[in-house]
Amino acid sequence: MARYKITLAYDGTLFQGFQRQKRKTVDARTVQGVFELALHQIGWTGRSILAAGRTDSGVHASGQVVAFDLDWRHSLDALQAALNAGLPEDVSVRAVDMAADDFHPRYSAVSRRYRYTIYCQPNRDPLRDRYAWRVWPALDLELLQRFAGELHGTHDFADFGTPPRSNGSTIRSIFKAEWSAGNGSLIFEVTGNAFLYRMVRRLVYFQVAVAQGKLDVQAISDRLYGTKRQMVQGLAPAQGLVLVEVSYL
Amino acid sequence: MARYKITLAYDGTLFQGFQRQKRKTVDARTVQGVFELALHQIGWTGRSILAAGRTDSGVHASGQVVAFDLDWRHSLDALQAALNAGLPEDVSVRAVDMAADDFHPRYSAVSRRYRYTIYCQPNRDPLRDRYAWRVWPALDLELLQRFAGELHGTHDFADFGTPPRSNGSTIRSIFKAEWSAGNGSLIFEVTGNAFLYRMVRRLVYFQVAVAQGKLDVQAISDRLYGTKRQMVQGLAPAQGLVLVEVSYL
Repeated sequence: MARYKITLAYDGTLFQGFQRQKRKTVDARTVQGVFELALHQIGWTGRSILAAGRTDSGVHASGQVVAFDLDWRHSLDALQAALNAGLPEDVSVRAVDMAADDFHPRYSAVSRRYRYTIYCQPNRDPLRDRYAWRVWPALDLELLQRFAGELHGTHDFADFGTPPRSNGSTIRSIFKAEWSAGNGSLIFEVTGNAFLYRMVRRLVYFQVAVAQGKLDVQAISDRLYGTKRQMVQGLAPAQGLVLVEVSYL
Repeated sequence: MARYKITLAYDGTLFQGFQRQKRKTVDARTVQGVFELALHQIGWTGRSILAAGRTDSGVHASGQVVAFDLDWRHSLDALQAALNAGLPEDVSVRAVDMAADDFHPRYSAVSRRYRYTIYCQPNRDPLRDRYAWRVWPALDLELLQRFAGELHGTHDFADFGTPPRSNGSTIRSIFKAEWSAGNGSLIFEVTGNAFLYRMVRRLVYFQVAVAQGKLDVQAISDRLYGTKRQMVQGLAPAQGLVLVEVSYL
């Protein structure tokens, strides 16, 4: 028996999120559910895999990390092939590694990176809508870049999300937050030690609202440094978000 | 009554091609079918729209062009909005223009541009598979670029496709054919006066086969200049192909 670390990619469109749901909703298709099914098919007898983070319904991943204990007597490549053979088309094992026995994808992680994609067009584009949020009128890239700059550092993000446990800390550190333009899209990349529930989607929504002039430019620092706490109302849609990478020491 | 020229985008995944099919297959979902339905909803009484080209089942478009005659008393923007309101999520009107009464999207066109996307990875990537062909082992970009260079000019492409009418000419002119790399993908862009049926997918398949060493490098010029004609067996999959643009004088 050894612990394995798996890097997973999935298209979140047809999943009701990452996390397996309770028995009463047996028909909810989840990434964890289909992955555990593929694991059972190769002899895994565990109860639940460990995961770096629970992505919401509709959110994608190119670098989700999960771990489990398995008695496997073949190569890592063979494990990858066996798992991919048992997974549906919208989930794929991208990498397989051995891990320490106490490796935990969530608690061992030192940072997470997310990417959010927006495109600015007056009409919908069927070739972009699956992986991006359409926003119109067009947004000013330099303005967005200025906002992202303010997110750097350690802040109380209570207005942007809820912690995994009630009354848990809402303080998080953002190592990098940047907007860039490419291929007709605006891309927000953000790396932090950890993120509150729905924090990235609220950060994107909020920056877009400010960029559109719906909120004052001062609003961002008010949210980060203010004393009066109130959750941001509004979420950027799930399909624009990708969990890109989870990093370990 | 005036003629309108419409630029259409669609995700071909859930369509059985562009062209409306005969009555006996009423359940075949086609781009033409859903577009004509949206047109009927705004009062169009025509029998059939005109189109620049018929894309195959699963092929996408960001710049398909269609035309029709309509009695419309509002603005072009209003026409675009009305059509988009009646179209499903995977089709969108990108532009609306007035056209001359004798404008025909196919016969008036001076060139077409297609794009084919490949990514080279040992395992499938659910975030790319909808719009690209996965090829492994990795292909050599410079080799592909050399092949594409040979396609320039006017050639008999009989080995790569069939003409719209039986016994029609198989001679076509390629104005530009290029491979480039970006975002982890290899992209083939080809512009020509017109294309034979399935010609782009056969050209891509053939170049990949040569790049993989399955066929001799000499094979491409043999196909273009040879006297013994035989259709290339094998097609690059539909989902990697996009009809990008149709140009008019």
